[in-house]
Amino acid sequence: MHVRSMSTFECTNLLSASRVACLACSKDGKPYVVPIYYAYADIHLYAFSMPGKKIEFMRANPHVSLVVEERGHGREWQSVVVDGRFEELPDRIGHKRERDHAWSLLSRHFDWWEPGALKPMTQPQSDHSEHVFFRILVDQLSGREAKEN
Amino acid sequence: MHVRSMSTFECTNLLSASRVACLACSKDGKPYVVPIYYAYADIHLYAFSMPGKKIEFMRANPHVSLVVEERGHGREWQSVVVDGRFEELPDRIGHKRERDHAWSLLSRHFDWWEPGALKPMTQPQSDHSEHVFFRILVDQLSGREAKEN
Repeated sequence: MHVRSMSTFECTNLLSASRVACLACSKDGKPYVVPIYYAYADIHLYAFSMPGKKIEFMRANPHVSLVVEERGHGREWQSVVVDGRFEELPDRIGHKRERDHAWSLLSRHFDWWEPGALKPMTQPQSDHSEHVFFRILVDQLSGREAKEN
Repeated sequence: MHVRSMSTFECTNLLSASRVACLACSKDGKPYVVPIYYAYADIHLYAFSMPGKKIEFMRANPHVSLVVEERGHGREWQSVVVDGRFEELPDRIGHKRERDHAWSLLSRHFDWWEPGALKPMTQPQSDHSEHVFFRILVDQLSGREAKEN
């Protein structure tokens, strides 16, 4: 096996191609990590969530870390780690374009909705449902790839 | 799809059967998440690591969070989230039984070694190598399962 660092371009390609990440947040020195579904566009990861512990943590401390992994043939893999910042996108201050874009990307996948919640039949509207729409600004990213020799 | 909570027994079974987790730690309000390979025994997850950011973070703040995911048939999945505490296990204060057990479990897998490091040919000895042997004590765990209707 040969392990090498990935370029920023390669990291971005992996973020664009994937839909599942592990999202870590922390509050009062306690980290918390959960899987999320996301859509990547313009150095942001967009996602919807039900209110809960991760939203509470990110509202208190916007610093987050994410990891996206893809398995290749045999023992091959790619892994990208992101340092980023949480930003909530309530409908009322206008994020229709981003919301529609994220919804469009995520709704192509049958199983995109976050573990623990069922996929809603229609796009959540923050005025009419409890769903929280947010994005993670990518501050830093790094990746590693393992290839068979 | 039907989503339900998993019992503690089911969560423990998933931790025992899996080898890969996303481990989140935090320091000074900054979370950091990476994939790790582990072996579960007696309410602890055992792992080896090269020194680096996650070891530095966990030495500074032992609180960690982990998530283990398994995909089933179709859209089915199981996901277990662990709250736990880091404990380093230097050889010199005696953890031979735990080290040998973890090594035995992990070395059955060709690709067990952490992303970014190549699998060593022989068991790392902390007196002779830089590898850090540690375990995570499971304080709390919860799990959710999605099944096809």
